[in-house]
Amino acid sequence: MRPEFVSLAGGNPDTSLLPHDLIADLSAQLLRERGAEILQYGSGAGIAALPESIAALMAAQGATVTADNLLITTGSQMGLDLVTKLFCDPGDVVIGEGPTYVGAMGVFGSYEVDLRQVPTDDDGIDPEGVAELIDTVRAQRHPVKFVYVIPNYQNPTGVTLSEGRRRRLVQVCSARGITIVEDDPYAHVGFQASPMLPSLYSMNPAGVIHLGSFSKLFSPGLRVGWMAAPPAVRARLQIAGEAVSIHPTVLAQELAHAYVSRPEWWQNLTIIRRSYQTRCEALLTALAKHLPDGVTWTTPRGGFFTWLTVAGVSPETDILAAAIEHHLVIVPGNACYVRTPAACHIRLAYSNGTPDEFDEGTRRLASTLDSLR
Amino acid sequence: MRPEFVSLAGGNPDTSLLPHDLIADLSAQLLRERGAEILQYGSGAGIAALPESIAALMAAQGATVTADNLLITTGSQMGLDLVTKLFCDPGDVVIGEGPTYVGAMGVFGSYEVDLRQVPTDDDGIDPEGVAELIDTVRAQRHPVKFVYVIPNYQNPTGVTLSEGRRRRLVQVCSARGITIVEDDPYAHVGFQASPMLPSLYSMNPAGVIHLGSFSKLFSPGLRVGWMAAPPAVRARLQIAGEAVSIHPTVLAQELAHAYVSRPEWWQNLTIIRRSYQTRCEALLTALAKHLPDGVTWTTPRGGFFTWLTVAGVSPETDILAAAIEHHLVIVPGNACYVRTPAACHIRLAYSNGTPDEFDEGTRRLASTLDSLR
Repeated sequence: MRPEFVSLAGGNPDTSLLPHDLIADLSAQLLRERGAEILQYGSGAGIAALPESIAALMAAQGATVTADNLLITTGSQMGLDLVTKLFCDPGDVVIGEGPTYVGAMGVFGSYEVDLRQVPTDDDGIDPEGVAELIDTVRAQRHPVKFVYVIPNYQNPTGVTLSEGRRRRLVQVCSARGITIVEDDPYAHVGFQASPMLPSLYSMNPAGVIHLGSFSKLFSPGLRVGWMAAPPAVRARLQIAGEAVSIHPTVLAQELAHAYVSRPEWWQNLTIIRRSYQTRCEALLTALAKHLPDGVTWTTPRGGFFTWLTVAGVSPETDILAAAIEHHLVIVPGNACYVRTPAACHIRLAYSNGTPDEFDEGTRRLASTLDSLR
Repeated sequence: MRPEFVSLAGGNPDTSLLPHDLIADLSAQLLRERGAEILQYGSGAGIAALPESIAALMAAQGATVTADNLLITTGSQMGLDLVTKLFCDPGDVVIGEGPTYVGAMGVFGSYEVDLRQVPTDDDGIDPEGVAELIDTVRAQRHPVKFVYVIPNYQNPTGVTLSEGRRRRLVQVCSARGITIVEDDPYAHVGFQASPMLPSLYSMNPAGVIHLGSFSKLFSPGLRVGWMAAPPAVRARLQIAGEAVSIHPTVLAQELAHAYVSRPEWWQNLTIIRRSYQTRCEALLTALAKHLPDGVTWTTPRGGFFTWLTVAGVSPETDILAAAIEHHLVIVPGNACYVRTPAACHIRLAYSNGTPDEFDEGTRRLASTLDSLR
């Protein structure tokens, strides 16, 4: 918030690109025409109209879902909270990517879950590593409750799980009777609208719980997401969700449905995608221009983030503290791991910045790294 | 939902009485003027403007709060969920009213909390009973984590905790170092706007966590509530809340603030209060007209519910199943107790029905009771 700082830390979408007047009109129309209903308690399952919109979004990833599979959530974060609450007792093992989403680590921590991480590379998590880890943990008589992955433009690495690895991961988990929790908020903010890779859910609906979100394809402030799960699991998740928040905000659900049902949504999403692509190119250009040898980064095909690997700096280094001395805010790689990783890493976000900020931020990052080597 | 049924079960406010056009205009104005901000991620503490509105609401109950004490929640249900998550391990004891809110029992159950109930009468829960129970449970070396009470127009009884008992309850708990969780969604829907009884929070801010809600004084569909707590507890609750839902819907918070800041809100609340009073009188009149001897009920001074005690029918009876045979839906008293209570009870709601429904519903209730005696 302080103007002398440059932040490449935040993972915010650029909501200034949304058509605010249209959204204002839709909101007013909903409240004027159906105010008594929209301001009243809603259903714990979510509004009746939204599953149709969600089914269309998921169909683009090869999945067929109906209202029986779908639960609307107060954002995808709550989806993950409910799955963890339902599946896990303290000490249970969940397997995730190394590195993974900081907010997921917060959820797992709040239920005292033992997160084990399998390294990722440019094609995402290694299914053979997952298979081995499941077998090892089970041999130690600990229960593995699920495998947690972010397949598209992963947070924090920006990497996408390849199609081959998707099929193999589903096979590995299915053969061992382990559920996959597929956290997929970035699916629709790839730089290219098509082709989209098939979702893990589409490959095995009985063995995958899919978490979706309107946060990146519309608005995070509305807090509307969804889960797709086998009907029996979905029913239990709904009961758990009702105990936590009764239901997601009805106006937010109705507004999400009204907006993504319109052609303006798709047109706007094209603008937003191109904007992220342009920003990503600007950030990667700045990195190439300013950063010293020995620093490498991922090349995202969508989403918000790139992930740096810094040779010659100890992974134990408090890289955030060092950056702050140079008036730069970043997400330190260590925050995305349970244990100290093998190398020093940094997550940079390009989703909500300007080329000037990228240039200046990267210059400050170079000074930060200089001061550490 | 089936037209041949009469329901006196639901605890919904009457949202048809709200000024939908005004609310539509406020929503459109917010999105038009501040769309990028309102559709963006918000703060886990809630929007900056709302504490002022909430402080004014709580001041009417004698409490002084600032933003340091306040956390905006995704409804008061989530407040209770977060408190329970933060304070309780499985097997811990929470003391509550007998009977109590079914939704609170759902939360306690989801964390495997051992709810013990102290009987209530027309003045609410008995503080001496609470003191005795705390001492007994502690003598058995079980930890008592908090005392949970709904002081105003309680759900399900409609009863209000007297001022004398409020003071004594605070004294009893404070002397034993036990936190009170004060769940107070109905405070502002008393039939008379004033005088309001002082909140438990106002009597001991260091020892009481207050749960407030916009659900009854504005809209439940928006899912906006708040907690007042000591700053250190508030900070931990915020972190726990961020792991669950990141933050409450920004548009819903802004709309709640915009609406309750206007004179139309207060004028409308007066209309709503009178409407509940009129409906309550109509229901109690119908009860006196149709119900047989041996049935008694509470006389609410606000809120949504009256609570029946039925002599001559076993407390083991499945009273809901019997009512459904007569095409009537009610909340069976047993649902509000951990163990079978001493008498047969029924909760009836008058907040969202018509005099005809009350008359016909009460007639059917009389037939139901006839069939059981």
